[in-house]
Amino acid sequence: MESHGDIRTSALKNPVDLAEYLFRRIHELGVRGVHGVPGDYNLVALDYIPKVGLNWVGNCNELNAGYAADGYARVKGVGAIVTTFGVGELSIVNAQAGAYSEFVPVIHIVGTPSTISQRDGMLLHHTLGNGDFNVFANMFSQISVAVARLNDPYEAAAQVDYVLQQCMIKGRPVYITLPTDMVQKKVEGERLKTPIDVRIPKNNPDVEDYVVGVILKYLHAAKNPTILVDACAIRHGVLDEVHELVEKTKLPTFVAPMGKGAVDETLPNYGGVGDASLQGIKEAVESSDLVLSIGAIKSDFNTSGFSYQISQLSTIDFHSTFIKVKYSEYPGIHMKGVLRKVVSCIDLGKINVQPTPPVSNTIPEAERTSRDQTITQAWLWPRLGQWLEADDVGEFPKNVIAISQVLWGSIGYTVGAAQGAALAAKELGNRRVILFIGDGSFQLTCQEVSTMIRHGLKPVIFVLCNDGYTIERLIHGMNASYNDIQPWHYKDLIPAFGGSPANSKTFQIRTRNELDNLLGDKEFSAAKYLQFVELYTPKRDAPAALKLVAERAAETNEKVE
Amino acid sequence: MESHGDIRTSALKNPVDLAEYLFRRIHELGVRGVHGVPGDYNLVALDYIPKVGLNWVGNCNELNAGYAADGYARVKGVGAIVTTFGVGELSIVNAQAGAYSEFVPVIHIVGTPSTISQRDGMLLHHTLGNGDFNVFANMFSQISVAVARLNDPYEAAAQVDYVLQQCMIKGRPVYITLPTDMVQKKVEGERLKTPIDVRIPKNNPDVEDYVVGVILKYLHAAKNPTILVDACAIRHGVLDEVHELVEKTKLPTFVAPMGKGAVDETLPNYGGVGDASLQGIKEAVESSDLVLSIGAIKSDFNTSGFSYQISQLSTIDFHSTFIKVKYSEYPGIHMKGVLRKVVSCIDLGKINVQPTPPVSNTIPEAERTSRDQTITQAWLWPRLGQWLEADDVGEFPKNVIAISQVLWGSIGYTVGAAQGAALAAKELGNRRVILFIGDGSFQLTCQEVSTMIRHGLKPVIFVLCNDGYTIERLIHGMNASYNDIQPWHYKDLIPAFGGSPANSKTFQIRTRNELDNLLGDKEFSAAKYLQFVELYTPKRDAPAALKLVAERAAETNEKVE
Repeated sequence: MESHGDIRTSALKNPVDLAEYLFRRIHELGVRGVHGVPGDYNLVALDYIPKVGLNWVGNCNELNAGYAADGYARVKGVGAIVTTFGVGELSIVNAQAGAYSEFVPVIHIVGTPSTISQRDGMLLHHTLGNGDFNVFANMFSQISVAVARLNDPYEAAAQVDYVLQQCMIKGRPVYITLPTDMVQKKVEGERLKTPIDVRIPKNNPDVEDYVVGVILKYLHAAKNPTILVDACAIRHGVLDEVHELVEKTKLPTFVAPMGKGAVDETLPNYGGVGDASLQGIKEAVESSDLVLSIGAIKSDFNTSGFSYQISQLSTIDFHSTFIKVKYSEYPGIHMKGVLRKVVSCIDLGKINVQPTPPVSNTIPEAERTSRDQTITQAWLWPRLGQWLEADDVGEFPKNVIAISQVLWGSIGYTVGAAQGAALAAKELGNRRVILFIGDGSFQLTCQEVSTMIRHGLKPVIFVLCNDGYTIERLIHGMNASYNDIQPWHYKDLIPAFGGSPANSKTFQIRTRNELDNLLGDKEFSAAKYLQFVELYTPKRDAPAALKLVAERAAETNEKVE
Repeated sequence: MESHGDIRTSALKNPVDLAEYLFRRIHELGVRGVHGVPGDYNLVALDYIPKVGLNWVGNCNELNAGYAADGYARVKGVGAIVTTFGVGELSIVNAQAGAYSEFVPVIHIVGTPSTISQRDGMLLHHTLGNGDFNVFANMFSQISVAVARLNDPYEAAAQVDYVLQQCMIKGRPVYITLPTDMVQKKVEGERLKTPIDVRIPKNNPDVEDYVVGVILKYLHAAKNPTILVDACAIRHGVLDEVHELVEKTKLPTFVAPMGKGAVDETLPNYGGVGDASLQGIKEAVESSDLVLSIGAIKSDFNTSGFSYQISQLSTIDFHSTFIKVKYSEYPGIHMKGVLRKVVSCIDLGKINVQPTPPVSNTIPEAERTSRDQTITQAWLWPRLGQWLEADDVGEFPKNVIAISQVLWGSIGYTVGAAQGAALAAKELGNRRVILFIGDGSFQLTCQEVSTMIRHGLKPVIFVLCNDGYTIERLIHGMNASYNDIQPWHYKDLIPAFGGSPANSKTFQIRTRNELDNLLGDKEFSAAKYLQFVELYTPKRDAPAALKLVAERAAETNEKVE
């Protein structure tokens, strides 16, 4: 689009600088902390961030900033990141592809060379040296639900509104370029009086009624129906409807690995995470003659290597863009309205409720009575589960928000994501944020702990020191040197990153007794400052579910026809 | 391309596994250290690396690995990196775009899901969840001179040879996908007996003779010709020809900022780096009636914000794909043959040699006599220049290889690049590698110092601690908080990353006397282990050339019509 130059300011009722307009809209959506790294093409735009009541985070690098914006969005509903042209934006392709893959709404704003430089094809720094300024936007268009290149003051405000609306409604990343000479161009501020409409469009009532009728027919006839909740139930905002359904019907309810945290785990009919290591759950779901599958993402890691045997003939799939009952598809229908109507029209007298298998989160007998002080995975996770509290951002009593990246699965993601989540938690009144990460993963993105210290965030970070990339050892190369890592003194990074006794505390834990004592310490649990735990576990040990996923991945990789 | 299944092994004279074939070809080109991060889709391929005599580096993260492969390639002529599908490869888009922009040949191999999974559009981890396995390859095709998707055993060996040849001849990145089920497919090993032909194709002799005649006509007639050498002279392998020309003609010779290190700075007719801060050089080049411009990259930062006023009417441009004499273009001609013939046909009696302005690399009088112990930029750089030695990889006596990224300019690049360069230097017999980096930049990629320690590399690292992003302060926001960074205790990272007194040493330098003592210490200069210097300089101070570039960048950013 060619620039038409300035809008005559006199033609505007309420002239506002474009950058101010953009950031005020972002504030309106609920963002308060903006992630990113400064760069020469975005500096003038950054001046507007404090002006509109936003806070600049200032990450150590762009990829970490991208992960952080994603983690922030998973807690607050939307995140934002600012980078600079080329060298900045290209470092977050991985983070934004992950957000696209996992349905996380992240607004990415890129400061670019001026429209004049672009038009003239100037050989500027941060370019490919070929005068082509579109290459990077083309890359991002493949992992964004909308792209706005703000090159024209006449169009810019409308472009901003459209792209932000798409981000919220579709729950996926968008990409916005802001040239240096557009930052201070005037746009119509009157528009800001009308908030962007981010409501999910209503379903066609006739179609919705029809679909609900079909669903209820099968649900009332089923002998042992179950509910299986997955990530898209979280991302597309139907957790209230899900809980009404779960609590009203009392049907056995499970979550997929990516849906962890979607359902209040203190409910009596909550049956646990349906990963294939738990044989009881697998059987309960597979033997069900009607699975209400809400927001499913049927990837390999999310189904424990496609190990489920749920027949489509016994499934009703609820999605944000369609409903599928057995093999009948109903496109253009959002699950929100459908679920709401199912809940209100259900005839409880006709629902067959089978008992929910008990959730086993206790330490196995053999581990509990062992005198071995080694912190095995079989002992560790139930022990940590006992320690977690409601409202934590980690795992998993009531109101816990779980953050993981099961489909995209980028190692190192969680350090950045924890920074973003911890900032979001602080904005929401200092909920606890707990990060569990392997040593190999931690090395990718370690410096973002510095950003946590800088902003006074108070996560509890457990680095599981087990000498390398354990999941990869399980897939291939158990003893291969490429799965080894350089041994670090992890907790010594905290003071090196500027942590002081006033804002941080570090621990080294090698035995069960040491961990019991730490978890029993009320000050530790109060999480009043950043706490960093170096936790030693055996090199080749892994949770049962991970072992199974790795085995299936190795099989898929090796398969030949 | 669909897989045709296995080649019947009996049809091959010398069956070799595809991964072995690929890595043997890479070894043949001169690579010894392969950078990258393991991931489940590349693990089986990694098993072949030691088998063919290559060494696996194993970086902390992919972006750093990409920078390292780039730094390695700048010393050894070519670099290689292995990543995994999606989450791995997408983290190095920035690094590979930089290598593309700056003409650095880096071979990027991506381990991908099997051809079967791709054909079936399986919803695997590390995918966008939409069954499209081509998105990432499409992104890389825009920053690669050749792409090979090794999906077919009948084509794979020829594809490998073609793509590696393009990488070497064009001096830019290539992208290769290796699906898990293709790693062990048999290909024809007999091909390995014939090395890939990476010679630059010969020029058409008639055209070459004609162009040389035109060049000599102008050169013999010129009153004060000069030579200006830039980055593409390094990248396209014409430094021998350049030195013959420089030494034979004794013409005043300058280098552009990106060409730093291309010319032996001990030659009497070497006139220094033509950045606009040095008025004498600018005048000498601008007043020349014939500039032999060899391998120019005319970007803003490389020309100090386009501040040169060299008329195209006084310029002969030597490039790898064309020669331009004044306004006459000669396409399809490589500078290598032309330069060689110019040197051999030149009539020295007809060359007018004007005196070369003296290179000023001494400490300015005011700084030298000052009693102030503050380490100013004006004092620091000449002082360090006195300390540098021939054969260093840093700056800039004879045989020094300079590594910087003037066009692409990604902050944080140099830590990774220094790891790669230090590995290359070790392979070449332990040349010294010296890294100068700002504190803000260091925070992006700090963990790659761990990789240096892990492999016993011995760079000297100076971290200039000046409280933030100084170049950005100079462009915009001198006191803006977004240009601040978290204060770190930089040297404490070395022991945290596993450095010990046996393999590393750290220093903190705050005064001129301390730096004089350090640089005078023979043990320090011997560089027998990794040395890390925390060097404090004032917050707002910068070299004169940097100040000028920043000023011009700010002007370009702000320009409106």
